[in-house]
Amino acid sequence: MKKAVVLVSGGLDSTTALAMAKAEGFDVYALSFDYGQRHARELAAAKRVTAALIVCRHITVHVDMSSIGGSALTATIDVPKGRSLAEMDRAIPVTYVPARNTIFLSIALAWAEVLGSRDIFIGVNQLDYSGYPDCRPEYIAAFERMANLATKAGVEEGVRLRIHTPLIHMSKAEIIRKGMALGVDYAVTWSCYDPTAAGRPCGRCDSCLLRQKGFSEAGLTDPLLATKNL
Amino acid sequence: MKKAVVLVSGGLDSTTALAMAKAEGFDVYALSFDYGQRHARELAAAKRVTAALIVCRHITVHVDMSSIGGSALTATIDVPKGRSLAEMDRAIPVTYVPARNTIFLSIALAWAEVLGSRDIFIGVNQLDYSGYPDCRPEYIAAFERMANLATKAGVEEGVRLRIHTPLIHMSKAEIIRKGMALGVDYAVTWSCYDPTAAGRPCGRCDSCLLRQKGFSEAGLTDPLLATKNL
Repeated sequence: MKKAVVLVSGGLDSTTALAMAKAEGFDVYALSFDYGQRHARELAAAKRVTAALIVCRHITVHVDMSSIGGSALTATIDVPKGRSLAEMDRAIPVTYVPARNTIFLSIALAWAEVLGSRDIFIGVNQLDYSGYPDCRPEYIAAFERMANLATKAGVEEGVRLRIHTPLIHMSKAEIIRKGMALGVDYAVTWSCYDPTAAGRPCGRCDSCLLRQKGFSEAGLTDPLLATKNL
Repeated sequence: MKKAVVLVSGGLDSTTALAMAKAEGFDVYALSFDYGQRHARELAAAKRVTAALIVCRHITVHVDMSSIGGSALTATIDVPKGRSLAEMDRAIPVTYVPARNTIFLSIALAWAEVLGSRDIFIGVNQLDYSGYPDCRPEYIAAFERMANLATKAGVEEGVRLRIHTPLIHMSKAEIIRKGMALGVDYAVTWSCYDPTAAGRPCGRCDSCLLRQKGFSEAGLTDPLLATKNL
């Protein structure tokens, strides 16, 4: 079996990317990050996801990005609420974490080299990407090119590493339909940037709003909202 | 003053790169990594270096690469000793840490964006680089290209980020002479991969051997070896 390193945040997109990697016949090595997120719910969701979808191994790497700051997700900046899609599209939001995908993909690259894997999956998508520069195809292509010059496997053994972005051109609704077709139970995933004191999704941050729009356009109900014990 | 993020390991090369960034008129923001190295001497040296050379700020970011493994520097693989330069050149050694410079530069990129800096310095060099793929100019150029597609600063503000590698074509002897000319006291630096129980450099790992060769070719004595209290 071919091995793939799959970045798993516990969200809807990375969970679908994981299901797609499995459907392509890869043995999945799931990689999550404890990077100073303001809440630990994402990591709990990542554990539920990798248990539900069954992976060969799941590791969580600690990267202390809080010492760098610069984002509403790691620092004490307020998460914006109730923005329209037009507002989200206008500028890169304060929830943008500087160079996050670059850091995550770099560590995935290291693990892939150790595992002897030539394939990394990341659930970025360009349509509903909320303006993050490191979700664009030209960025991914440049990362892949750099990665193939960076490693011992690439230089000594001529191993050609590929960054898979199966969701990059899909809408949130298409992602959800694809995941459902592959048997994903989205009740185990988590998207909200700023949960309520009671531990429910806030329903008003960009991530909640994009998730709602996706389920709505897919004509489905979000099973997470029907879950009593989050 | 322009701000530069400088990667500082506490070794001879990064210390010289720091001195060169200062000589070019940059305000230096020094960045070190606690990445599961087998010994903490490097980090102590990085603190001595940034104190001696005076920087605006010095942070140490924790990245838990020990969970990934794959290197004699982070795992329980023996560090090779007493190798000739020909042996060092033959293959990438077990002290190679998978994707290390990629991970370090990615975090430097994040910090540079937060600081509003357009300049990152890394003390890689191609001649005495012991066969590490991520010390080659083509790798650095590919990283720089990727970095300029990765960040909000690059995409929204058209900021052009540069990766400076002032040592890339220098020999160890040239690096040492350059640092001496800039007033660097190499007694505060540390290079050994595998210090003795008494806390002295082993004198036989690749890093010690390249350092000795450098001082010898520069016609100088390594002040670290004359230091009693390491």
